[in-house]
Amino acid sequence: MSKQNLRSLYQQFVARLREIALLSSANNIAEYDMEVFMPPAGAASRSDVASLLAGIIHAKRTSAAFGRLGEKLLAAIEAGRLAGPEAVIVRRAMADFERSRKLPKRLVEELAKATGAAHHVWVEARKNADFSLFLPSLEKIVGLKIEEAGAIGCGGSPYDALLDQYEPGMTAVLVTSVFQPLCDFLKVFVRRLGTGDAPDRSLSRIVLPAEHQAEISVWAAKLIGLDFNAGRLDSSAHPFTSRLHPGDVRITTRYEASDLLSSVYSTIHETGHALYEQALPADQFGNCAGEAASYGIHESQSRLWENLIGRSRPFSEVLAELGFLQAFCPGLPDKDEFYRVINTVTPSLIRVEADEVTYNLHVALRFEIECGLIEGRIAVRDLPEIWNAKMSEYLGVEVPNDGAGVLQDVHWSGGLFGYFPSYALGNLYSAQLLEAAERELPDLWPDVRAGKFAGLRAWLNDKVWRHGGLLTPVEIISSATGTAPSADAFRRYLERKYADVYRLK
Amino acid sequence: MSKQNLRSLYQQFVARLREIALLSSANNIAEYDMEVFMPPAGAASRSDVASLLAGIIHAKRTSAAFGRLGEKLLAAIEAGRLAGPEAVIVRRAMADFERSRKLPKRLVEELAKATGAAHHVWVEARKNADFSLFLPSLEKIVGLKIEEAGAIGCGGSPYDALLDQYEPGMTAVLVTSVFQPLCDFLKVFVRRLGTGDAPDRSLSRIVLPAEHQAEISVWAAKLIGLDFNAGRLDSSAHPFTSRLHPGDVRITTRYEASDLLSSVYSTIHETGHALYEQALPADQFGNCAGEAASYGIHESQSRLWENLIGRSRPFSEVLAELGFLQAFCPGLPDKDEFYRVINTVTPSLIRVEADEVTYNLHVALRFEIECGLIEGRIAVRDLPEIWNAKMSEYLGVEVPNDGAGVLQDVHWSGGLFGYFPSYALGNLYSAQLLEAAERELPDLWPDVRAGKFAGLRAWLNDKVWRHGGLLTPVEIISSATGTAPSADAFRRYLERKYADVYRLK
Repeated sequence: MSKQNLRSLYQQFVARLREIALLSSANNIAEYDMEVFMPPAGAASRSDVASLLAGIIHAKRTSAAFGRLGEKLLAAIEAGRLAGPEAVIVRRAMADFERSRKLPKRLVEELAKATGAAHHVWVEARKNADFSLFLPSLEKIVGLKIEEAGAIGCGGSPYDALLDQYEPGMTAVLVTSVFQPLCDFLKVFVRRLGTGDAPDRSLSRIVLPAEHQAEISVWAAKLIGLDFNAGRLDSSAHPFTSRLHPGDVRITTRYEASDLLSSVYSTIHETGHALYEQALPADQFGNCAGEAASYGIHESQSRLWENLIGRSRPFSEVLAELGFLQAFCPGLPDKDEFYRVINTVTPSLIRVEADEVTYNLHVALRFEIECGLIEGRIAVRDLPEIWNAKMSEYLGVEVPNDGAGVLQDVHWSGGLFGYFPSYALGNLYSAQLLEAAERELPDLWPDVRAGKFAGLRAWLNDKVWRHGGLLTPVEIISSATGTAPSADAFRRYLERKYADVYRLK
Repeated sequence: MSKQNLRSLYQQFVARLREIALLSSANNIAEYDMEVFMPPAGAASRSDVASLLAGIIHAKRTSAAFGRLGEKLLAAIEAGRLAGPEAVIVRRAMADFERSRKLPKRLVEELAKATGAAHHVWVEARKNADFSLFLPSLEKIVGLKIEEAGAIGCGGSPYDALLDQYEPGMTAVLVTSVFQPLCDFLKVFVRRLGTGDAPDRSLSRIVLPAEHQAEISVWAAKLIGLDFNAGRLDSSAHPFTSRLHPGDVRITTRYEASDLLSSVYSTIHETGHALYEQALPADQFGNCAGEAASYGIHESQSRLWENLIGRSRPFSEVLAELGFLQAFCPGLPDKDEFYRVINTVTPSLIRVEADEVTYNLHVALRFEIECGLIEGRIAVRDLPEIWNAKMSEYLGVEVPNDGAGVLQDVHWSGGLFGYFPSYALGNLYSAQLLEAAERELPDLWPDVRAGKFAGLRAWLNDKVWRHGGLLTPVEIISSATGTAPSADAFRRYLERKYADVYRLK
């Protein structure tokens, strides 16, 4: 094969990847529209549009012609004729291809059917706080996910096969080695905070009509750097980020009139995701060089902006001094108190409402349960009992019913096993990144206090965003921070910050 | 073939049609998003999404497997084993299939390429008012359209092959037989109005900020019956209606602060389209029974609501007496004068701004030119001269430059030859429908005056909407009104209305 032929093959290969990404983009446009704009009666046909597109995308992803093209390129890599980023791109795409091909069509269809049917069963079960209603659906799904993990196959725990989709290269053993000491620390730390001077969380509840909340959300998103020329901010029932292309990245938030800061911090969180997506190399759209490195790295960006920057003392002062916020809400606490009340720690039942200290305990509990389920050590019917025991052990709270317990998350009804660890890993990565940024950017905090974020964005772009998925999560964190992923920086961050917030001796 | 097998074949056939319609729906979602919501930088990838989807849709429309299925059903129709609406549906779909198959792939691609490239050339040419810039592109497109008409082939004028796409069964001879006497009448009628008491059109220009215009647009759309549970109203550069499904029909309007009524009447026009789309049988989505009968019938609905109802004396009184309009605009003319000023007739250069009397003259002129081009009687390079001569002859206006003349419409740059007649046919159909409705609904006008439209909607549903495309345009108009399509009712409508507006002796 001539050099020119090899080049042409490679171009065809990435052109096919780009086509798949454009079709996913079409699907995402329809999904965003559904969540944000669609009138109620549109639902009747919309799910058919989505499943039709999903089928076409799947067929392209697993097409034999695409596979043959990739095989030739893999051979060229073996022969040392293709290297560098292009080799990484081909290898990653072919790993995804092989993974898809390993799943029997019957399994894919059964999973789609089971999760499709399970959603409303889960909604009902949660509403009635009755796990037994959801039990048959979940048993079916867990059985299929065990089958999926077996079909993909990999050396260690079968759970690794599921984890790898969200966090390439991550294993159950690695996650355990990070989570176990973290949880031991957190359990003690939460008790220690109990001895401190607790701020009054209720003071952070600011009442403001939705239209004014929207003005503040737009202000916050613009302040930290969302490019509205290549993005939008809307509202929806659940906040999310939608990526159609780096030139069109959209975020949503949710306005509750009784809680301004809930919408502001949702907006900052989603803006963190969006900054990453807007910065990905558009000319690599469709292959891994133009995609985020992992769900954990993605979450590290949203949590960095939401918590490590957004709930820092300097940022909280910017917010507390915001002229039109003061005009709307004359009874705001002063800026010292404001900083404390937005950083209250309270062990509670619901993950999505958890503070940054207790959040990872919620995730660790789910990780242990998922691992047990997929490795066959835990039976689905025993879940409520196990859940409640772990909540008591980890967070010291008693679960009043399954609705506020084992049924609270949507993930399992959709077959999303292996996803939860990314949330906690993102928190840990974010603390590692912040420590490194503090070392390398002497003006970081004065800049935040001044509402200037260009320096931090440039640093994140250099260390994280511009690499897309050419580096693994471990490579990104290691090269950006000088240390492999660990919980140490996160622990140091919590100790330093909360000694201040809780006035610990 | 057993009865059961035949049933199953038919179900497969319409399921494939539904798939194609769902993919078109995906394309329409993306297009609506592009016109209404997309941030500027999203344009880079959006056209690639659209052309990728268009390619997939075309492949499904022309697939051999689909053709074989249809052939078997056609044979069953021949053998008398399939009849009624199902036979109509199969025949219509197979006629479209045959049409698509007759076009060589090379021609389809060349047309897509030529029209894709021509758009910005046309924009430039119009901006510079210089036809010579557009000449090479238009010569190319006209050449390809002549080739297309030849490939499709049909008995009479080659133009019929193009016309038939928009108005099934319509021919150049039929259109001429309707337009010629209509134009003769209109030319005389416009001169006659010149002897009357002309209202002052400038009084109809009501200044109002966009947000208040939007309130009035929503009020108008709801008043005449747009179901917001199955639709939306947004704003865009050019007003249009987008149909994703009968459960999700969206319209846009355009707000110019200096001209409230422009947005109101755009909204009413698009609502007319949307009422039709929302009423089409959802269970027939994808086949002709669930689709509009033609572009002309569609236009008859929008024009009926916009002009025949919307600019009638009773409706104009509802508008003039609208409480919050009076509150916003204290200097409105009184209701008698209001009725007159919104019905001013002024021969002018631009079709889209024309009143209902002169509008059809603009269309007739285009029809004659298009016919001449496709039949090879007119050379593209002679267009400006011919255009200007016809404008002078038909409307008595002198064209100052090509930008305000032959370059004004976007249609030809997109290869849309055969489309224009639908606009005028819609006007004629609407007058026929109104006459029939007046006969059959004694309370029509009192209801309009009272802002009640349920009776008229029910009548239109019975006569037009519920039939979808199971009837041809001629069948719909003939069965609804008792007469074949003609200009007579339109002529009577104009004479009656404008004798009043212009106080003719």
